[in-house]
Amino acid sequence: MNKNVIVGQSGGPTSVINSSLAGVYAGARAANLGKVYGMQNGIKGFLEKRNIDLGEYIKDEVDLELLKRTPSSFLGSCRYKLPSPEEGEEVFAKIFEILDEMGIGYFFYIGGNDSMDTIMKLSKYGEAKNSPIRFMGVPKTIDNDLAVTDHSPGFGSAAKYIATTVKELILDAQVYGNNAVTVVEVMGRNTGWLAAAAALARDNNSMGPDLIYLPELAFDIDKFLDKVSMVSKKSEGHSPTIIVSEGLSLADGRYVNEITSDKSAVDAFGHKQLSGTASYLSQEINRKLGVRTRAIEFATIQRSAAHLQSLVDVTEAFAVGQSAVKAAVGGATNRVIIIKRLSSEPYAFATDAMEIEKMANIEKLVPREWITPDGDNITQEYIDYAKPLIQGEVSPYIVGGLPRHLVLPK
Amino acid sequence: MNKNVIVGQSGGPTSVINSSLAGVYAGARAANLGKVYGMQNGIKGFLEKRNIDLGEYIKDEVDLELLKRTPSSFLGSCRYKLPSPEEGEEVFAKIFEILDEMGIGYFFYIGGNDSMDTIMKLSKYGEAKNSPIRFMGVPKTIDNDLAVTDHSPGFGSAAKYIATTVKELILDAQVYGNNAVTVVEVMGRNTGWLAAAAALARDNNSMGPDLIYLPELAFDIDKFLDKVSMVSKKSEGHSPTIIVSEGLSLADGRYVNEITSDKSAVDAFGHKQLSGTASYLSQEINRKLGVRTRAIEFATIQRSAAHLQSLVDVTEAFAVGQSAVKAAVGGATNRVIIIKRLSSEPYAFATDAMEIEKMANIEKLVPREWITPDGDNITQEYIDYAKPLIQGEVSPYIVGGLPRHLVLPK
Repeated sequence: MNKNVIVGQSGGPTSVINSSLAGVYAGARAANLGKVYGMQNGIKGFLEKRNIDLGEYIKDEVDLELLKRTPSSFLGSCRYKLPSPEEGEEVFAKIFEILDEMGIGYFFYIGGNDSMDTIMKLSKYGEAKNSPIRFMGVPKTIDNDLAVTDHSPGFGSAAKYIATTVKELILDAQVYGNNAVTVVEVMGRNTGWLAAAAALARDNNSMGPDLIYLPELAFDIDKFLDKVSMVSKKSEGHSPTIIVSEGLSLADGRYVNEITSDKSAVDAFGHKQLSGTASYLSQEINRKLGVRTRAIEFATIQRSAAHLQSLVDVTEAFAVGQSAVKAAVGGATNRVIIIKRLSSEPYAFATDAMEIEKMANIEKLVPREWITPDGDNITQEYIDYAKPLIQGEVSPYIVGGLPRHLVLPK
Repeated sequence: MNKNVIVGQSGGPTSVINSSLAGVYAGARAANLGKVYGMQNGIKGFLEKRNIDLGEYIKDEVDLELLKRTPSSFLGSCRYKLPSPEEGEEVFAKIFEILDEMGIGYFFYIGGNDSMDTIMKLSKYGEAKNSPIRFMGVPKTIDNDLAVTDHSPGFGSAAKYIATTVKELILDAQVYGNNAVTVVEVMGRNTGWLAAAAALARDNNSMGPDLIYLPELAFDIDKFLDKVSMVSKKSEGHSPTIIVSEGLSLADGRYVNEITSDKSAVDAFGHKQLSGTASYLSQEINRKLGVRTRAIEFATIQRSAAHLQSLVDVTEAFAVGQSAVKAAVGGATNRVIIIKRLSSEPYAFATDAMEIEKMANIEKLVPREWITPDGDNITQEYIDYAKPLIQGEVSPYIVGGLPRHLVLPK
């Protein structure tokens, strides 16, 4: 009898995180492994033994396709940071006890670099105890800040949502011809991959955003206001659209949205919770330049708009899930599946299993040369990189005018 | 030689306002009328003689289909209120002088109830001067607050966007199982038709929003906090989603977002500019109930998300444009095209030309009996009314991963 499988999802969801879950499930079935369990709310729910038999919920190919089209994390998520094995021996002992009880031979964790830290710690503890269990990371993040991999599953669909919506908003903003300024806030705590995706709206059919600011560079409010003033006077009736990353920060290290707010809540990983950058900056523009402004935040819509999934992204998210199973069955452990770009035109990719130490706890920034010298827009290199990742559409399964999803009964 | 046609767009755009423009254009071509001119930025641009020959931009069937799929107002818009003919005789004289210069026989204005006021004034002035020009209103508004018509072109697509996105956000909100509260703000200054559309997300596949508040009823913050507290404790790990209309106001008439804000900017029609209702209420929930909250505003995305057009809405928007031409050619003037519902299951509609006085300057509210007795949710009557209007999808023309639009060159 083959060993059982367990899979979990951790961190913020993406609109294709369930495609990777579908990939792990399909991979385990194809490899004729035992039962495929899902941990509810990640390692936190696993410790509470809230694990389910996925086979009871994914009954056929239609369920699998629905799962791929379902936003949010089907299994729920957590932001639970494992202690180091030295500090939290009892937590690790408990985890391995449950794994043994369940007959688990393969452990998959779908997440970002914090989740890779979890896999790394479990692998090391397992290795020290001579456990035969294989631990594999499956990458996901809309932020695209994972090292080693060419890009991260989840990024392409978020980028497609941002580019599509920015293109629509730019048209909408021109309607009164009143030189008003729209400031759009895009997610991205320390990296600007997503904010930069707004530049993809720029094609022969759209002027694209006028200015784009990424957190990779220190933000200077006076320079910013000068630039905004310039673009808003560029031509009669032109209403500029300005993209700002939620994580913009000043040279002194303060986040822009901390200037007026003393709330600097942190999550379980010590990351500051951000919001309000666009709102603050649009007020400043209005106050200092006297022009009408509007602030728009994409908020969590940008990570859950599964109705705008990129086909390339869904395909890759599924593939990394499948590849993780294949690699684990082949004996790999303490590894993460990465995406290698074989060619941009036509776009082609392959997957590989990489040492997880190369990804865990590392943040990949947008290269300086992909940002214009002035620091307020994006160069063609970024476009060439990101454009292939938003290609292709996935038709939602529409029932009664709305997309149908696969949802775990409460 | 047949007389020429002029058409304009006014007020806030919808994602199908250009389908009505396409309908007027196609109707004029079918009726073999003269040139079809478009006024840029409505009556304001018309007075500045910024009129274009639409035939130069809509060259074939593909352009016409692209136009239908293009959000915002192709011709630009304005919020220009005509004076009364008594107060502003010279403006009217100027308008009719330009109309004569251009050989116009038919004047179409696509807009909401403020725009119908424009048509009414022009018709009356024309009548007094024995002008043969036909003046017709073509209705549009995402707000669905127009009287006489069963519903307004633009509403169905905005409702489809709201229902789809709320369905996705509800799933996203459940991911940590932490009983956090999401407050979503939907457009609607004085009427709750759009906020109510979030209820369409409730089906056998989604629990739908927990609470929905419309501006039709006076808003009581203490009662609201009690209700939020109740739904957030409903079940372990359930994270409620609360929909609020931007126009919520207290019993004393103050808008909720005026409680903390002293800015009450008004537009050219004297309407207050609103925003920040969700943001204020989510802060109150956090402060008084001590739960985590998140505020999300759909902002102008809900009126410009053409990638989520409803096929029923596009079809009707096109039909009202065509019907306006047919009616005008048949001799009608000072009328607006309305939609009559012939049947809900299966859905069927017809158009009719109605006296414009019955629509201009009147706001249609959500009936009290379509709101639950407690005032915090929507009844089945509303669902039965709105559900047919979000049916059917329109495939965007995708080029390079993004929807293509028809855009007037600058």
